[in-house]
Amino acid sequence: MPVAMTPLATGERKQGTVCIFGTGDFGRSLGLRLLQAGYEVVFGSRDPKNSPLVPKGSKVMIHTEAARTAQVIFIAVQRDHYEFLTSLTPALEGKVLVDISNNLKRGQFPQSNAEYLSSLVPGASVVKGFNTVSAWALQSGALDASRQVLLCGDDPQAKQAVVNIAHSLGLTTQDRGSLRAAGEVEDIPLQLFPNWTLPLWITTGLTAFFFFYLLIRDVIYAYVEKKQDISYRITITLANKVFPIVALVMLALCYLPGALAAILQLHWGTKYRRFPDWLDRWMLCRKQLGLLALFFAVLHVLYTFVTAIRYNVMHTRDTEVIAQIAENRTVPFDSAEAWASDAFLCLGVLGLGTFLLLGITSLPSVSSSLNWREFRFIQSKLGYLTLTTCTAHCLLYGWDKFLKPSTYKWFTPPGFMLCLVVPCAVLVLKLALSVPCVDHRITRIRNGWEGPTKRGSGGRVVAMEKGTTL
Amino acid sequence: MPVAMTPLATGERKQGTVCIFGTGDFGRSLGLRLLQAGYEVVFGSRDPKNSPLVPKGSKVMIHTEAARTAQVIFIAVQRDHYEFLTSLTPALEGKVLVDISNNLKRGQFPQSNAEYLSSLVPGASVVKGFNTVSAWALQSGALDASRQVLLCGDDPQAKQAVVNIAHSLGLTTQDRGSLRAAGEVEDIPLQLFPNWTLPLWITTGLTAFFFFYLLIRDVIYAYVEKKQDISYRITITLANKVFPIVALVMLALCYLPGALAAILQLHWGTKYRRFPDWLDRWMLCRKQLGLLALFFAVLHVLYTFVTAIRYNVMHTRDTEVIAQIAENRTVPFDSAEAWASDAFLCLGVLGLGTFLLLGITSLPSVSSSLNWREFRFIQSKLGYLTLTTCTAHCLLYGWDKFLKPSTYKWFTPPGFMLCLVVPCAVLVLKLALSVPCVDHRITRIRNGWEGPTKRGSGGRVVAMEKGTTL
Amino acid sequence: MPVAMTPLATGERKQGTVCIFGTGDFGRSLGLRLLQAGYEVVFGSRDPKNSPLVPKGSKVMIHTEAARTAQVIFIAVQRDHYEFLTSLTPALEGKVLVDISNNLKRGQFPQSNAEYLSSLVPGASVVKGFNTVSAWALQSGALDASRQVLLCGDDPQAKQAVVNIAHSLGLTTQDRGSLRAAGEVEDIPLQLFPNWTLPLWITTGLTAFFFFYLLIRDVIYAYVEKKQDISYRITITLANKVFPIVALVMLALCYLPGALAAILQLHWGTKYRRFPDWLDRWMLCRKQLGLLALFFAVLHVLYTFVTAIRYNVMHTRDTEVIAQIAENRTVPFDSAEAWASDAFLCLGVLGLGTFLLLGITSLPSVSSSLNWREFRFIQSKLGYLTLTTCTAHCLLYGWDKFLKPSTYKWFTPPGFMLCLVVPCAVLVLKLALSVPCVDHRITRIRNGWEGPTKRGSGGRVVAMEKGTTL
Repeated sequence: MPVAMTPLATGERKQGTVCIFGTGDFGRSLGLRLLQAGYEVVFGSRDPKNSPLVPKGSKVMIHTEAARTAQVIFIAVQRDHYEFLTSLTPALEGKVLVDISNNLKRGQFPQSNAEYLSSLVPGASVVKGFNTVSAWALQSGALDASRQVLLCGDDPQAKQAVVNIAHSLGLTTQDRGSLRAAGEVEDIPLQLFPNWTLPLWITTGLTAFFFFYLLIRDVIYAYVEKKQDISYRITITLANKVFPIVALVMLALCYLPGALAAILQLHWGTKYRRFPDWLDRWMLCRKQLGLLALFFAVLHVLYTFVTAIRYNVMHTRDTEVIAQIAENRTVPFDSAEAWASDAFLCLGVLGLGTFLLLGITSLPSVSSSLNWREFRFIQSKLGYLTLTTCTAHCLLYGWDKFLKPSTYKWFTPPGFMLCLVVPCAVLVLKLALSVPCVDHRITRIRNGWEGPTKRGSGGRVVAMEKGTTL
Repeated sequence: MPVAMTPLATGERKQGTVCIFGTGDFGRSLGLRLLQAGYEVVFGSRDPKNSPLVPKGSKVMIHTEAARTAQVIFIAVQRDHYEFLTSLTPALEGKVLVDISNNLKRGQFPQSNAEYLSSLVPGASVVKGFNTVSAWALQSGALDASRQVLLCGDDPQAKQAVVNIAHSLGLTTQDRGSLRAAGEVEDIPLQLFPNWTLPLWITTGLTAFFFFYLLIRDVIYAYVEKKQDISYRITITLANKVFPIVALVMLALCYLPGALAAILQLHWGTKYRRFPDWLDRWMLCRKQLGLLALFFAVLHVLYTFVTAIRYNVMHTRDTEVIAQIAENRTVPFDSAEAWASDAFLCLGVLGLGTFLLLGITSLPSVSSSLNWREFRFIQSKLGYLTLTTCTAHCLLYGWDKFLKPSTYKWFTPPGFMLCLVVPCAVLVLKLALSVPCVDHRITRIRNGWEGPTKRGSGGRVVAMEKGTTL
Repeated sequence: MPVAMTPLATGERKQGTVCIFGTGDFGRSLGLRLLQAGYEVVFGSRDPKNSPLVPKGSKVMIHTEAARTAQVIFIAVQRDHYEFLTSLTPALEGKVLVDISNNLKRGQFPQSNAEYLSSLVPGASVVKGFNTVSAWALQSGALDASRQVLLCGDDPQAKQAVVNIAHSLGLTTQDRGSLRAAGEVEDIPLQLFPNWTLPLWITTGLTAFFFFYLLIRDVIYAYVEKKQDISYRITITLANKVFPIVALVMLALCYLPGALAAILQLHWGTKYRRFPDWLDRWMLCRKQLGLLALFFAVLHVLYTFVTAIRYNVMHTRDTEVIAQIAENRTVPFDSAEAWASDAFLCLGVLGLGTFLLLGITSLPSVSSSLNWREFRFIQSKLGYLTLTTCTAHCLLYGWDKFLKPSTYKWFTPPGFMLCLVVPCAVLVLKLALSVPCVDHRITRIRNGWEGPTKRGSGGRVVAMEKGTTL
């Protein structure tokens, strides 16, 4: 595969020749970039005389001639036009064809474009790649997001030739295996946060539910029963109830599927049975659920920190002080209230602290620098610590409200009580699963059966034990 | 290239022999590290008897003899002394020479050191590398910043030999293409945040301007007109006006060049004309502008959160309450004020929330895990959302101040009005560019012309459309 | 090494055959994943008829027969059972054996498992790898933490064959050098934050000491001397004294070893003498010390931000206002107090700002995108700026308390005075080392001696100068 290293006779060191079929936007951008990196570029076209926009310094020839000039040929035409390549079969024999095409939507065709190309020209080595790089990124060279070329193909030497070209253009590469993976690689540029769809729907649903629930209980109740217009409370007071509630429920929802999975495995007595689809999907989006919970928790904290400088909070306090003086009374210091207030805030601060640590360790570069023992230690131990702290924070918020009848406006429980249901259930489940005899059984199940050639290595055992509880 | 794999006859598996020309600091550090990794190390020196500091276990020979012992030779001498290598040409024939040199400043020589070396010894394969690794990092092995070896060279096998050595030393490697890229690799250790220079100057200029402008309007005005010394307000009150102003202007400056580029392309009717240099430079430092804006926004938020515990704020409020009682009056609750105050704070919190998301997605490991559709979605949609929210936050701050004559001290507008100019201009421009007929034209221009072999893939079309507006 | 590319005669493109010795949990998980990726999988077993749990689609044969079917054999049995492989020597001749085993604890055996395997079957090429990947990660494919396969081995071709398999399974690989590194790779899954142990002990010790010290001085003193129960202050008031104190001491402890190292080098007159072990260990955990300090600083800031909404703070202020009115007195505005209060808070905010920058640049993906000149600039310059700012913040806290006798309850100094000792010592040392003549001497020492072939490149000189002070 002499592409990237053929020293030309002209004296100047050249990178060799690369051929591009198609003179569309991406073809031209790629050609320009290749010229800048020292390659000779030959465009293949049906009508070489009528291709005015090719970059200066490149040549245009008809396809068969163009194909002869180079070992690597970029196919920058649409899949619909691939069929014309069958007529070029002799010229393409033994060449490396780089399929850079994208589709309009996922699963548009039953077969990936690259595999289709390979079936049309079986004598060539097809490499899928460059489809995740945009023409704009090639032109500007500035975008972090698209400097990585994902490659797949069945011929390692062909792949290496394409890797060399990508490196010459200042791009990084990642090998994605054989051409069977081409469909996956083709889907990547069409994705828009696929793992976030479900968590975002859950978040939106919970937020909308609690917003309207609290709007009715707080603002509309006050208007109907007391003829007070407290609608100004929507932007902060109400939002600052909805956000922590949703954050806590979402955090608990991260840990619920692990507990359910453990129960199923206990029930089945094996780990070799597949979980139901809904549980699988749920488990795969736990990280996203957790990050959304963290985002809502941070908003809650920011809202809380501006409490003291809000107009209505300041006005209420001033009015209260003035009233005390007018009535010549002083409110005595309540030590229990001071304890509860400080402990409540303290738990909130510590909960946020550990939650932030969880968030930081889920950054790709941090999590990839941990081994799985460490990653699981953090996600499991620190995760349950965060959930416990935040649940206690919420319990302390309502410590003196549970038994007051005035709490239950229109016979409905307040938001913080509703939001305690899921976290408390998760914590109770986790406690039940941590009872030694239960825990021992789960550990055994998760290590597979105890056969004569089992791999009983310690680290792995520990990891398995925590496998689905993180 | 048998360097890293030659099994020696001695029985013990050895890594082979590596030669180092030069017994300076870096040469010795490298030699020590190679010895620790199991290599035999031979130093080449003019005066082998007088090289007392080479690490224990290595040998010292005169250059020609040393060169014969190994396939890979590290050239750890200064460029000024490269000429003596021409006398060794026969001994260096077919060897891999690793150029590890650095220069004192960028562009010191017209030709890169590695290319110069290659021209002196044309029979050898020159690989540029290890210059980004410090002697100290080799000794300690602890620094994240310098564990990556950037390599370039024209001979893939020679490069692979050096890659093997780097891996044996626990270093990672990145292929930077052919020897033409050596100049770039040589410049890297000399850079000190090259992309940050322009944004830092803009930040400093804006900060200085608004600081003195507000110092005159607030502190000096009060001193001259009212004989009040309120200089204590400089550290927080004034700083907390300057920081949000600069943050908002900088955020708007991130999005202005994209809008300008779109207007130019509309005017030209093509995307194949180069932007003026100043616009190119501006567009390349948008990320840095945005991160500096985020830093200033965070400082603003921190300053705001300590408002309620500042001595003068507390004293002013106490005085106000005491005055109300002394005069036996109560300030009635103003619902409009409560709405404005809460909405203002709410927009600030939400603006910070989305701004933080923007910042997190610009972390290298996060942005590289996004495809360009996702990256552009975030930078474009979330970016404009942040800009809109923060501009509205600023507008609400002054909602009742625009028409009051007392706002215009010494006939100058207050800082927040000045700072609204750029963001509002950007938002108006963006709105104008989003009108369907204009948007359609830009989209067509950014997809190149509509030829017979165009690549009309959906994802790419969408991306191009946003190409320069993000 | 035709494993990943052998096109089979069956027409369908296959990945080739892989053999797995051992039908334990990991072996079966790996087999299933290989089948999914298109490989043929043959399990080697002593009793092929009695291996009911192998994945559907795979075959089971006795070891010798299984070994003949494939070029790459995964050894998924425990080290204790390796000896049976000696009987298979002829069948394993020339094969690639992948040692995937883990141990129960570090240093369990004098020789690494992979080297032991290699000594048992000298005719085969042993590659260590896959031990950092968990069976669960293979099954789910979802965990970031364990998608990286660390490989080491002496035969590059054997390594490449394993790399190809890993890529086909969607895993990334990292070359860790020759088989000598196998012990290190085997230790990785057993580690649980090895670099964090010492810093965590230091943090715990400091926190405990200052907590009890302040508990005695504040809560117990008030109870004994004034019969006041102020125990409610433990959760926030006391914690918010302990956290900043520990944060500042820890930050200073990051920079102390660099200063001590410089003094030692000045004293010795050379940089080629090894530091004492304790200093080496200390220097290697500076990053962790700094991150823990940042975490405590953030907790301190969060605690501070809730000050104004704490019950006892609000009650105290209301009581004070009411008392002023009752006594018909007004506290005059104290300009010096306003200056001190605002400057104190301002320094805290700025200190946190630069500290956060330090923390962000220590994220792996950020620090790896910096060259060492930039990394050292940040860690050294920005680090000392942070230390200076935070020390000044602490000094201003006590500006009017140093000379008051009431500060020294029970003749003990308050916590903030104790915590100033280390930071002030570090700053004084740093100042002394920055005196030009001293600085010049250190720079010379850190560049090694001044020989005829020294590498006097500028970037490197600067870097060395800062080498151990960062």
